[in-house]
Amino acid sequence: MFRTAFENLRQKAPLIHNITNHVTVNDCANMVLACGASPIMADDLGEVEEITTLCAGLNINIGTLNSRTIDSMLLAGRTANRLGHPVVLDPVGAGASRLRTGTALRLLEEVHFAVIRGNISEIRTLASGAGTTKGVDADVADRVTEENLDAAVRFAKEFASRTGAVIAITGAIDIVADGDTAYCIRNGNAMMSSITGTGCQLSALTAAFVTANPGHTLEAAAAAVCAMGLAGEVAHRRLTPLDGNATYRNYIIDAIYNMTPQQLEEGANYEVR
Amino acid sequence: MFRTAFENLRQKAPLIHNITNHVTVNDCANMVLACGASPIMADDLGEVEEITTLCAGLNINIGTLNSRTIDSMLLAGRTANRLGHPVVLDPVGAGASRLRTGTALRLLEEVHFAVIRGNISEIRTLASGAGTTKGVDADVADRVTEENLDAAVRFAKEFASRTGAVIAITGAIDIVADGDTAYCIRNGNAMMSSITGTGCQLSALTAAFVTANPGHTLEAAAAAVCAMGLAGEVAHRRLTPLDGNATYRNYIIDAIYNMTPQQLEEGANYEVR
Amino acid sequence: MFRTAFENLRQKAPLIHNITNHVTVNDCANMVLACGASPIMADDLGEVEEITTLCAGLNINIGTLNSRTIDSMLLAGRTANRLGHPVVLDPVGAGASRLRTGTALRLLEEVHFAVIRGNISEIRTLASGAGTTKGVDADVADRVTEENLDAAVRFAKEFASRTGAVIAITGAIDIVADGDTAYCIRNGNAMMSSITGTGCQLSALTAAFVTANPGHTLEAAAAAVCAMGLAGEVAHRRLTPLDGNATYRNYIIDAIYNMTPQQLEEGANYEVR
Repeated sequence: MFRTAFENLRQKAPLIHNITNHVTVNDCANMVLACGASPIMADDLGEVEEITTLCAGLNINIGTLNSRTIDSMLLAGRTANRLGHPVVLDPVGAGASRLRTGTALRLLEEVHFAVIRGNISEIRTLASGAGTTKGVDADVADRVTEENLDAAVRFAKEFASRTGAVIAITGAIDIVADGDTAYCIRNGNAMMSSITGTGCQLSALTAAFVTANPGHTLEAAAAAVCAMGLAGEVAHRRLTPLDGNATYRNYIIDAIYNMTPQQLEEGANYEVR
Repeated sequence: MFRTAFENLRQKAPLIHNITNHVTVNDCANMVLACGASPIMADDLGEVEEITTLCAGLNINIGTLNSRTIDSMLLAGRTANRLGHPVVLDPVGAGASRLRTGTALRLLEEVHFAVIRGNISEIRTLASGAGTTKGVDADVADRVTEENLDAAVRFAKEFASRTGAVIAITGAIDIVADGDTAYCIRNGNAMMSSITGTGCQLSALTAAFVTANPGHTLEAAAAAVCAMGLAGEVAHRRLTPLDGNATYRNYIIDAIYNMTPQQLEEGANYEVR
Repeated sequence: MFRTAFENLRQKAPLIHNITNHVTVNDCANMVLACGASPIMADDLGEVEEITTLCAGLNINIGTLNSRTIDSMLLAGRTANRLGHPVVLDPVGAGASRLRTGTALRLLEEVHFAVIRGNISEIRTLASGAGTTKGVDADVADRVTEENLDAAVRFAKEFASRTGAVIAITGAIDIVADGDTAYCIRNGNAMMSSITGTGCQLSALTAAFVTANPGHTLEAAAAAVCAMGLAGEVAHRRLTPLDGNATYRNYIIDAIYNMTPQQLEEGANYEVR
């Protein structure tokens, strides 16, 4: 199933519009290229409507948010909705400032998202309409563990029902859920959290997977999460004792570049709850 | 000949002002350093005039264009013209939105460019004063091939005559032309298109080459295009089966860093039409 | 001593707010992660006060300065001062334009810095209240050498006394001084200057070290400068003949990721004057 989703992506090579932060924008573009899609980064109000129209999917990421780009996100999101293009939201740092929380909530009100992907703190912030996070990393007290997995799954399904979006909560265990079904994914490597932007890259990758698989948003998002985690595993096996997080970053993108649909199908490590 | 152009660059180490997009700005800076020149990135209206004056050459790239930077581009361009500094234009995504197309055309009207470097779609957009492109990648129907090479060369020479700029159209076959002479270049590797920003990096590299070789703009621009393509070949030979586009990106910059003028002279693969 | 400083950093994992340029922002974030701290990049006026409050330290870098971010720097700096959080200033390109020089001087007036880190040209610009630099690299005539080291140390101590900040002047020989004591550091490798942003990364690293070692700002800043230089040495030893500045960039971050407090203690090469 994930094999087919990835085959569709490689074959269709969709053009993905990204409005994203300037910290990890280069990595996101290379990740979109690595998976076989084509990225275009554009965030000026004067062109986002045309760029979204030209593309097949949209990825909105609120890291390094600024007043200039918020209107662009809203306009692009509404345009994508009107055209029926899937939109992914990455609420980076929601809960860390009123600007980010408020913007994320406003985006949720005005735009329908196909997928919302964040860590548990960010997703909780959106679900509760307020909250605090420790910067852009998941609050330790809020980490998804084997012990609280069932509760987290219920939370994800409920928020998915409420928003009509697939909810992807990533961390040590990833949850990808719609209102009925949740994929609990155990791919990945703990060292991924020592790289800036693996979450951002995953959101861009998710937009590519979902865009190439209309009508199969849940499976496509789960495939993207498994692919990213599997890439983290493949890349980690390549590391020598002198390699650190910079080389690891490159190897993860390399691993997506070289990943075959068959490899994803075999390497995906998940259960459905 | 290309040997001398590269020797001049390594020896003069010109300071290059770049007003460029935030996707590939880091790669462009490292590419300028790799070739032996020195980059300064500055795009605020309050300082571009001074920065351009301090530098010896200017590189303008309209990717991730925004309203804040357009006036900076115009002011820096006019300043460089007044001082006799060469200016390179990279019209990233011209044709993808009215903002980009309009800005590129306005730059063409108000600034004289030493070199305009883009893919065939972007250059066609500028030449026709309008058009569409598939995002920031060359329109497939518009690709330069052995079959349409003569027509593309005629087009490049004609546009060069009209603008007084050297026109560099890059793709599977690259064309670098003034009104009379065209270099048709067959360096490079197809995998380069799976990296974001190889075009941007080439434009920055071209600015460095052209700045270090006053009075020899055509040859210097052709040397830059050959150097980039040759770097793509050298870097590709280093790749192992697990390496992908991220490692390839690094190896291309590395290859420029290590390239000798002699290596460029011997590796350049071109004919003059 | 440096061992303890690094142990504190790894153990406390402080959250560091960075307002920095878009050229090297990704490298700065990965460097902060590599040393064991946690970065948050945020520069909008609407959120910097909250983000600074959430964090334990602040790093302000004026490369790619623009009118939108200057007010954010001032507000974040004043907020950090009020909370007693250490603030690091990297006056990238001070002297290259009135905008940068004026902004750096205004920051010095309105914010108290724990550490100011720059090359000799930038620091001289701040000390004299004016000046010129060759872009963002140190003016050759102004380079710190064995011959002028004593004079440079006196200059650094004097400027440290005047500002109440630890002054870190980096180059072939680094000087880290307060009003009384100067560390003269001979770690590093000349090839580091062929990478964009090693200075920016060092400033971010310094913010992490200083934040984790309250009451020991001088030693913590010196430890950061030694760590960066040592990383440059370790990374340089890994390079093969085909590697250049792009691979070197990654290996330096990798070297910080893998560096142990013991390794820093043993590899630090300095004298106190």
